[in-house]
Amino acid sequence: MPPISLSQRSAWTRRQAISFLMQQAVENRHVLSLAAGLVDEATLPAFECQTALQMLLSDPVRARSALQYGTTQGADGLREQLVEHFARLEGVPRSELGVGADQFLATTGSQQFLSLAAETLLDPGDICLVAAPTYFVFLGVLNGVGARAIPVTADADGMRMDALEDRLRELERSGELSRVKVIYLVSDFENPSGVCLSAERRREVVEIARRWSRERRIVILEDAAYRELRYDGEPLPSVWSCDPSHEHVVYTQTFSKSFAPGIRVGFGIAPRELVGPLCDRKGNEDFGSANLNQHLLATILASGQYASHLQQVLAGYRAKRDAMLAACDEFFADVPGVSWVHPAGGLYVWMSLPAGISTGFDSPLFSLASKRHEVMYVPGELCYPADRPDWTAPRYQMRLSFGVLHSDGIREAIRRLAGAVRDVLSSPGSAGR
Amino acid sequence: MPPISLSQRSAWTRRQAISFLMQQAVENRHVLSLAAGLVDEATLPAFECQTALQMLLSDPVRARSALQYGTTQGADGLREQLVEHFARLEGVPRSELGVGADQFLATTGSQQFLSLAAETLLDPGDICLVAAPTYFVFLGVLNGVGARAIPVTADADGMRMDALEDRLRELERSGELSRVKVIYLVSDFENPSGVCLSAERRREVVEIARRWSRERRIVILEDAAYRELRYDGEPLPSVWSCDPSHEHVVYTQTFSKSFAPGIRVGFGIAPRELVGPLCDRKGNEDFGSANLNQHLLATILASGQYASHLQQVLAGYRAKRDAMLAACDEFFADVPGVSWVHPAGGLYVWMSLPAGISTGFDSPLFSLASKRHEVMYVPGELCYPADRPDWTAPRYQMRLSFGVLHSDGIREAIRRLAGAVRDVLSSPGSAGR
Repeated sequence: MPPISLSQRSAWTRRQAISFLMQQAVENRHVLSLAAGLVDEATLPAFECQTALQMLLSDPVRARSALQYGTTQGADGLREQLVEHFARLEGVPRSELGVGADQFLATTGSQQFLSLAAETLLDPGDICLVAAPTYFVFLGVLNGVGARAIPVTADADGMRMDALEDRLRELERSGELSRVKVIYLVSDFENPSGVCLSAERRREVVEIARRWSRERRIVILEDAAYRELRYDGEPLPSVWSCDPSHEHVVYTQTFSKSFAPGIRVGFGIAPRELVGPLCDRKGNEDFGSANLNQHLLATILASGQYASHLQQVLAGYRAKRDAMLAACDEFFADVPGVSWVHPAGGLYVWMSLPAGISTGFDSPLFSLASKRHEVMYVPGELCYPADRPDWTAPRYQMRLSFGVLHSDGIREAIRRLAGAVRDVLSSPGSAGR
Repeated sequence: MPPISLSQRSAWTRRQAISFLMQQAVENRHVLSLAAGLVDEATLPAFECQTALQMLLSDPVRARSALQYGTTQGADGLREQLVEHFARLEGVPRSELGVGADQFLATTGSQQFLSLAAETLLDPGDICLVAAPTYFVFLGVLNGVGARAIPVTADADGMRMDALEDRLRELERSGELSRVKVIYLVSDFENPSGVCLSAERRREVVEIARRWSRERRIVILEDAAYRELRYDGEPLPSVWSCDPSHEHVVYTQTFSKSFAPGIRVGFGIAPRELVGPLCDRKGNEDFGSANLNQHLLATILASGQYASHLQQVLAGYRAKRDAMLAACDEFFADVPGVSWVHPAGGLYVWMSLPAGISTGFDSPLFSLASKRHEVMYVPGELCYPADRPDWTAPRYQMRLSFGVLHSDGIREAIRRLAGAVRDVLSSPGSAGR
């Protein structure tokens, strides 16, 4: 029988690394995972969902509406609630927000919105500028549409604006400026590095996108997945809010981290001229995310249960973040050349080993950690675009999630990880390069 | 400000016609819609969902599992239930089914599975053979990936196999056989025509796909969305079951019509070598449909509530189908040149007017019907591939849905539609050409 011939798109689409990690977790049952991006089980809102669904489904009119087909763009009632919610996050009255429900799309998590935006904006060979490091699943999305992810150096304040302009100048010189379509930013608590783009850079990036939009507009895709998971400090205005025209920034957020991933509701906000194309694309892909879930979330938002539940979620994660940082102090203090970021929010601690120690799937460290020490992490190199002639991804970093394990488990996992790192450092010739 | 530059994909993606119809419905509030593909409100399973969700969310272990992230391929518990369910539909013990849960994918309706299959199999310029007429939303999906839909004549037994072989021979002669990747079939109660592919043709089409697979395999994409909505006669074996190798047929089905669209759970079954690529693509698009909904449907299937609810759904639709056929007899009997199909299942009656009477959005009939007579339908021409040098889509047909309206509303809508048709027929020169 002749083979099935897959599309070019399919060939570009790599298995997301998360699949390999899940397989490793299944094959190594006693492994403590610092890799999984799952959320805290203890704070999942079973009671809140039960109450809201009971209310929704016992009302015949609302039940029928929730169980019928919805629209591709998303339930009106939810999108109205989303406008209110977004206005609260921006700290402005709804009337001054400058955007209405007609520019909101409800999606299957923010992931679907990111994918729709990539499909709608990027042709094969087009360029998306990304912070280095950045969200590895989005790098997979860019591969899947055949686009090129070009890394921009980041520091403790997020993507560096001088580096961004350098990249744009290089691309202008090489005649590729017209291929730059998107700047992708995880504005709050970057996955994996935990850093936030500073307020100043938020204004600058909008100005840079505007200035470098010549024949074609450069769109900023702002991924605010972790925005509401802030444990310290004051919230920052979104990049979106730094663009009064609201014509340069596409914004997306999800309730997966702040409420429950199993509901799988995210949303996006788009400039008016993009709303139609995004909806048309979604029309082909599924013509609408689950309507019941949208009605459920609208109920939860309207009742105030979301806001009160979020406080529990934040308290839980804050404690676990602190547990991880304390464990790092405890077990890594005397390991030379190891450093880590103290995140003010999000779900990850980003750790750097001495530059010679490789953390990749095929490294001695990963093997030692997962098999002998029974602990798993996300290798940092996954969070960088693939190597290019002028660019080699760092190989010595790790993303450590405090999302899933309890505080005791986090401490034990960090203890194990430190053991694995020590083993590698003390092995002949400091293996793992 | 320079314009946003959309991708080629986006340019290929047309607004699904359903959006225009919904807009018309909003602008013409008194219109009775025979267009909407929504389902019967009276039989939506509010009670069943409420009970199952109560059970699920009050059990802490199950609740946590349902509210956490799931896997891209779908919840194990659901996929196990789907195997059982599919075995019942095929009328064989699960042990003889020849396929396991590892080849099932849970998706956001069957629409998402259709889209994933198109993305995974079809490159721009590739060919998908379709019955004429066929499901118009899938024609939109084919446009969206830049594939060519080539029509194959159908009759009361579905796609004609002699016509299919004629098309394949033509394509061989023109050197395009290697571009034929997919044969798309709505095997039961084709949307819009209501016809089923006969048992003999089901066997033949598998044999034809096998015989014509030369360098590349030709995949049959079997869309069984309406399979369980049978009101008369005996169920037919799936096309999938006619391929003992299970290497030629990709099968998809949904619970949107038979249970509730608002849950938005569908599924697909794929040859082993396609499962990975389909999951990888879904990994990029949303890395998993809503987990809560999958747990809900698994609960409903396991409890037997699905099977008992389906009997109510069937009784409701059977009565509405009969109401529509009776109204057609009552109001169209004396209109010359009008005929319609008596469907044994599904949601649609397919009506043909005299060949000169156009039914399209820009026709006098559509305008008269929606504005003066206040009734709406889906123009038949939407259900055919676009015109080609050797092919012109018929323009004189209508898809009439008995899904949404109650029996009285159906009778009134058909009365109005007959009025509109009579107006057009009696106008000078039988306008509407």
